[in-house]
Amino acid sequence: MSTWQPDNGAHILSFHTLERIGREHGAVVAQAVSAAVTAGDAVKGTTSPNPPVGASLFDDQGVVSTGGTSPAGGPHAEINALRNLAGRPSEGLSAAVTLEPCNHTGRTGPCSHALLEAGVRRVFYLSADENPQAQGGAEFLREHGVEVYFLDLPVQTLLPWKKAIEKGRPAVTVKWAHTLDGFIAAPDGTSQWITGERARRFVHRDRSQRDAILVGTGTVLTDDPQLTARTATGPYENQPLRVVVGTRYIPESFHLGASRDPNILSFASIEAALSELWERGARDVLVEGGAGLITSFFEAGLVDFIHDYTAPKLLGAGIALTGWPGARTMADIKEFRRLGTRVLGEDVLSILGQS
Amino acid sequence: MSTWQPDNGAHILSFHTLERIGREHGAVVAQAVSAAVTAGDAVKGTTSPNPPVGASLFDDQGVVSTGGTSPAGGPHAEINALRNLAGRPSEGLSAAVTLEPCNHTGRTGPCSHALLEAGVRRVFYLSADENPQAQGGAEFLREHGVEVYFLDLPVQTLLPWKKAIEKGRPAVTVKWAHTLDGFIAAPDGTSQWITGERARRFVHRDRSQRDAILVGTGTVLTDDPQLTARTATGPYENQPLRVVVGTRYIPESFHLGASRDPNILSFASIEAALSELWERGARDVLVEGGAGLITSFFEAGLVDFIHDYTAPKLLGAGIALTGWPGARTMADIKEFRRLGTRVLGEDVLSILGQS
Ligand SMILES: NC(=O)c1ccc[n+]([C@@H]2O[C@H](COP(=O)([O-])OP(=O)(O)OC[C@H]3O[C@@H](n4cnc5c(N)ncnc54)[C@H](OP(=O)(O)O)[C@@H]3O)[C@@H](O)[C@H]2O)c1
Ligand SMILES: NC(=O)c1ccc[n+]([C@@H]2O[C@H](COP(=O)([O-])OP(=O)(O)OC[C@H]3O[C@@H](n4cnc5c(N)ncnc54)[C@H](OP(=O)(O)O)[C@@H]3O)[C@@H](O)[C@H]2O)c1
Repeated sequence: MSTWQPDNGAHILSFHTLERIGREHGAVVAQAVSAAVTAGDAVKGTTSPNPPVGASLFDDQGVVSTGGTSPAGGPHAEINALRNLAGRPSEGLSAAVTLEPCNHTGRTGPCSHALLEAGVRRVFYLSADENPQAQGGAEFLREHGVEVYFLDLPVQTLLPWKKAIEKGRPAVTVKWAHTLDGFIAAPDGTSQWITGERARRFVHRDRSQRDAILVGTGTVLTDDPQLTARTATGPYENQPLRVVVGTRYIPESFHLGASRDPNILSFASIEAALSELWERGARDVLVEGGAGLITSFFEAGLVDFIHDYTAPKLLGAGIALTGWPGARTMADIKEFRRLGTRVLGEDVLSILGQS
Repeated sequence: MSTWQPDNGAHILSFHTLERIGREHGAVVAQAVSAAVTAGDAVKGTTSPNPPVGASLFDDQGVVSTGGTSPAGGPHAEINALRNLAGRPSEGLSAAVTLEPCNHTGRTGPCSHALLEAGVRRVFYLSADENPQAQGGAEFLREHGVEVYFLDLPVQTLLPWKKAIEKGRPAVTVKWAHTLDGFIAAPDGTSQWITGERARRFVHRDRSQRDAILVGTGTVLTDDPQLTARTATGPYENQPLRVVVGTRYIPESFHLGASRDPNILSFASIEAALSELWERGARDVLVEGGAGLITSFFEAGLVDFIHDYTAPKLLGAGIALTGWPGARTMADIKEFRRLGTRVLGEDVLSILGQS
């Protein structure tokens, strides 16, 4: 399980994991692994349909260069790390990569070949590539005399992309914010703000790292959200597609109103939304509510991850988190697996997966 | 805000706090502060009506001895730390204490005098003593040429005791375990087990550190709890008083049944329970449910802290966390302040106070 740095959203590996890598492979390798994870996290949201991979090149003294995947059609992380050497020699360096180097020629050449040609001596890869098309990079490098180590770490940044490849549709993360007693809004429908400033800033950063944000017509008509990714001083450079699901007409006066912007899409079903988004290259989508749309995703078995924001507050009454037919007894309970936890001011973000 | 060690329940100070102390006063002081906090935590639950204080004595090389408050009538933490020197010289040592050294002669002599007589050169105290009877220890030491530093840290172990002194009644911590959607039991009343093994172990340890555990007759009649503090291999040495609140008769066949054990008490009102417990020396009580009793404590304005265990699970229907009249709109929301957070396996414990 990984923990995160307190002051940015980077999914760094836990102290214990890095310490273990340091013991087994030396402190410089731990540092290079951490740099690769950070480089991958920095490009999340900009690489689909490719995975947001990070790479670092290092020698015995430390990291000499890093790189992340470029937008589709551009170079992969390893190639960018080699380019970022900016003329310094690559011969004899080691590499750390968050995903097994690819071995196939798509829009770019295979990274395994590029690393070999650059004279890289050792490659540490953090997670395996389950995409059959791309597999085989580690084997190729080993066959050509490169020392290859598979570290088998849970790289959070890559989880949605891996899930998307496995399922053949965009990975779905459901996000909700609720009180301790499980309400996402007061009885009159007001829900601004359940969580505090820090959590809301984190949500904006998270949006900037997704391919698309989905909401139901109910939320649009109640809250008129913008669904853009903003900092206190302005929008993030990367903006996800904004998607409304439902049949009700959204008047033009709304931020997500009819025919406002080519980056606002609207679908009458969640299946239509996911398949069109997949065609457009989206691999990682965030469903921001409300209760009706979230219930539909659960009922369709289409929820891969949950971003659960819990605020230390009580409403006592209101709109319940989910609307499906409830359990009768404890045996009916739905369980999820904890992938990460982050305290954001007064609130807690639990990142959950299917168990 | 403090974080905790992963593998025991000790309320250690956060890495950042210790780092700051290290920068300002040197690494040895940070180590001594941490040792004092741990020593105080180790005696929590055994010291009432006295506070669970911890102390350490140290020189330039490191900590040479620690001590925690003995049970009522016995020596305070500072005296125990001096005794634990076991003949080594105390002259010129420094001391760290989680609470301002006391300055009054109760059943034991004033700790401020004992530290001075022992030749202690510097005293770091982490939190102030608001008990007017005991105040003045820092001033006394300063007047007699000892260097005294007030660090003003949030010592979690002392919070209930401080709240009890402020209110003139035992501090009340309400504990509940709920699903993400805010249910403490399924519709048929079953609630075993909402949380996992790690959280349940932590609850037992927490019980061993309280003066009394309170439950309503509803929970007793439904779940027949033992309310003892147990490890996998047997009971903790320190067992809290077990208290049933309500008028319904509990048959002898129940663990908390009528006239079983002098450590099982029963009261017809929460006010009667708190005042009799105060007379018996209890300063720190835990209310373990159910919803009815918890609601009564909130309605009476008698909740100081919440131990909120959230399990990453959904029930969709069941017994709601609390039963009071709910909010109508967001402005009616009840907010709490986060004092600490701990991941326990799949579950999260949020320690909350009134904001
Ligand atoms: N605290 C939070 O995290 C949070 C987040 C978001 C919203 N909220 C609150 O939640 C409330 C809104 O909830 P809601 O349930 O009314 O709204 P919603 O989930 O945003 O929208 C419900 C609508 O979505 C469409 N929909 C749902 N499932 C569908 C499916 N399978 N196929 C096609 N369309 C589907 C339907 O639209 P049509 O009827 O148009 O066909 C349905 O009426 C608001 O009070 C808002 O403030 C809270
Ligand atoms: N998940 C969890 O954290 C958790 C923890 C505990 C229990 N539970 C579940 O909660 C359910 C039990 O809830 P409950 O509400 O029925 O039981 P409860 O709160 O344990 O007991 C309610 C009873 O407590 C007494 N009471 C409450 N306030 C009082 C006051 N101000 N003065 C005097 N007596 C007072 C009354 O007893 P009399 O009627 O006898 O006068 C009342 O009927 C069970 O299903 C249990 O499994 C869940």
